[in-house]
Amino acid sequence: MASLPILITAGEPAGIGPDCIALAWAADPDLLRGTCICAPAAWLEKRCQQLGLRLPLREVASPQASHDVLNCWNPLPAESITGPVTAGATAAHTAAAVIACIRIAAETCMQQRAGAMVTGPIEKAVLRDAGFSFPGHTEFLAHLAGDSPFVMMLASDALRVALLTTHLAIADVPAALSVQQTLQCLRIVHHDLHERFAIDTPRIAMCGLNPHAGEAGHFGKEEIDILAPAVEQARREGIDVTLPLPADTLFSPAMRTSFDAVVCCYHDQGLIPIKALSFGEAVNITLGLPFIRTSVDHGTALDRAGSGKVSYSSLVAAIEAAKSMSQRSMHASQ
Amino acid sequence: MASLPILITAGEPAGIGPDCIALAWAADPDLLRGTCICAPAAWLEKRCQQLGLRLPLREVASPQASHDVLNCWNPLPAESITGPVTAGATAAHTAAAVIACIRIAAETCMQQRAGAMVTGPIEKAVLRDAGFSFPGHTEFLAHLAGDSPFVMMLASDALRVALLTTHLAIADVPAALSVQQTLQCLRIVHHDLHERFAIDTPRIAMCGLNPHAGEAGHFGKEEIDILAPAVEQARREGIDVTLPLPADTLFSPAMRTSFDAVVCCYHDQGLIPIKALSFGEAVNITLGLPFIRTSVDHGTALDRAGSGKVSYSSLVAAIEAAKSMSQRSMHASQ
Repeated sequence: MASLPILITAGEPAGIGPDCIALAWAADPDLLRGTCICAPAAWLEKRCQQLGLRLPLREVASPQASHDVLNCWNPLPAESITGPVTAGATAAHTAAAVIACIRIAAETCMQQRAGAMVTGPIEKAVLRDAGFSFPGHTEFLAHLAGDSPFVMMLASDALRVALLTTHLAIADVPAALSVQQTLQCLRIVHHDLHERFAIDTPRIAMCGLNPHAGEAGHFGKEEIDILAPAVEQARREGIDVTLPLPADTLFSPAMRTSFDAVVCCYHDQGLIPIKALSFGEAVNITLGLPFIRTSVDHGTALDRAGSGKVSYSSLVAAIEAAKSMSQRSMHASQ
Repeated sequence: MASLPILITAGEPAGIGPDCIALAWAADPDLLRGTCICAPAAWLEKRCQQLGLRLPLREVASPQASHDVLNCWNPLPAESITGPVTAGATAAHTAAAVIACIRIAAETCMQQRAGAMVTGPIEKAVLRDAGFSFPGHTEFLAHLAGDSPFVMMLASDALRVALLTTHLAIADVPAALSVQQTLQCLRIVHHDLHERFAIDTPRIAMCGLNPHAGEAGHFGKEEIDILAPAVEQARREGIDVTLPLPADTLFSPAMRTSFDAVVCCYHDQGLIPIKALSFGEAVNITLGLPFIRTSVDHGTALDRAGSGKVSYSSLVAAIEAAKSMSQRSMHASQ
């Protein structure tokens, strides 16, 4: 059985999404082998011209994995007019097409016509102005999957971190934690480490919220009141997870290599160590969805679109992670 | 001019403080060259016997730097009876001596009869029961120095982090931040990077509290209301410090090497990256005091005292940092 293609959405066409695709292919076509770009070919063609690159692009009528030429599947209805794209200058008339490409890519994954989707960066303000009501990609994809609960994970060779809360002020984090949501996160992380990463018996570390994990309640009681009860219930369900551990030592070499993932209470608790250890190599993965989704971990960088001064390493890492998870999931379901 | 000795306080005599000293000397006497133990010699002798080590200990009547033999200066009055010490078993009768050794070491530094002090780990509960009313070493030393404002720094070859708050629940961190205290911290860090670390024009990064440093107020306003105004005032005073930067990317390789220190809002924001990057090599340094003080970054580990299964790497790192800062300060004042 041939591998299903990995769909790549370009994201904001005026941003560096198209640049990353073009530059990666120009550097080594193997980096994009097995993928299929899910976007109007014109978005990529024009950027290639600007960058002085000649890419062997082929427009395909359905998702097909690229080999010697880069397949570009425009999923939009023929009558769609997306209008011109200028590098660095966002435009309201492209917003609907950006949203549609993401939606159709997700649906194609759910129809099992694609093995995974990799998302390029979007410009949220442009989409919001066009009526897009989601905080970002992840929430939109979860909605398309029937309001699926989800967990944001960042993964590199050194570390995998999953987040209980994401873009929230530190002052709002303690009140946002709950036993039920912590338990749900532990279930999703355990399930996806097994199913998506093919880890037979996943070992999960629960990171405390407070310094020294609260030191038995001296500096905060969330470990006692919320995290430990969730851990105890998860253990009853057969999940291998620690009681809340102090954050400062949990990411030291001996500790971090003892676990398959660390569940963190807030954004920077997970992102500080993974970016300190694996900057530019960390991949954003959405767990809990009924399909595989990875993402670049950078923004649209509008000021660098078309400049050629762009690193495609995050895109390549996201593609590699998607391919690897897709193959493991295939094996797991055989 | 001969170098002044670096005083080492053993801390809790039943803990691993004496073990670390004995094992470091046994491994290589050069590791303790220039230091002087500030404690009753009996505390060290008995532990050496238990460990099967023969150390060339010399009791000295005043602080003197060790060379071929390890100098041990007992600063306690002759009539002091500290009582027997058993590895692993704390005892109320040693508390007063532990406190007196720390106090006299600090006073000796302030009298410029010692170049710095390095503190071994104390058992706070034992000292509290004996009437010690300070949260820890640092606050006691600041009190002895006339209620000096101070800043906790952790330093390694990879990174220096200074903390605006320390052992505080995450829920209490936002309310604990203020413009005045942030400004005071920036002044102390700037001053001590110059005076203690001999950095001509220190570059300081201010780390934001919230994810993405609040993203222009979208996830928290402490950056706008507290940190930025403190930075602006510090800049008017000639301090080179950034506006609040996102914590997740600040500790990536390119960013962290651009600064001489990062001022962090809370304990784990600084300790996660330094322990991820430099576990066992980070030194705890108290800035703002009128003398140099470094500390091991571990506890008393009562269960391992006398076992020989103890790493002295943190003590050695603390001694090296104290020596280096002491020499730089001497040069700076010549």
